[in-house]
Amino acid sequence: MAEHTHGWESRGQAKTLFRRFAFERYAQTRDFMDDLSALAETEGVHPQNINFGSTYVNVTLDPTDSGEANHALAQRIDALYSAGGA
Amino acid sequence: MAEHTHGWESRGQAKTLFRRFAFERYAQTRDFMDDLSALAETEGVHPQNINFGSTYVNVTLDPTDSGEANHALAQRIDALYSAGGA
Repeated sequence: MAEHTHGWESRGQAKTLFRRFAFERYAQTRDFMDDLSALAETEGVHPQNINFGSTYVNVTLDPTDSGEANHALAQRIDALYSAGGA
Repeated sequence: MAEHTHGWESRGQAKTLFRRFAFERYAQTRDFMDDLSALAETEGVHPQNINFGSTYVNVTLDPTDSGEANHALAQRIDALYSAGGA
């Protein structure tokens, strides 16, 4: 990866990913949060930041170790959202 | 309560409460989040907003139905933090 080229250092903004998930009721938000928590536990990786209220969850993901946006984790989280019937 | 006097409407900022809880490790943050979730489940009341990362949890509480800052809930949450050994 370019980020690891000898003698060079990474500059510029980290490639975080952000998505807002919306829900109709708190119970759905709660279920999604539980799933998200279980995913973090299983994978040993957790979002940089989660910001949630009764009917929304905003998720920000760190870049991977290679400095790329973590699309793999984003897709795992999207799958939880779809599975929840939202 | 003054907020319910006939013919009058409430104006001004709602009396929310905010506190930042800091942790040394993600495992502690995770435990606190679990306790917070259980409390919300038991009480049937949940914070207006929770914003967390690996070593912090920012909590914002809605005012009570009478429009006062919800110190009772704040104290319940403080107790969870103390119980966690932080």
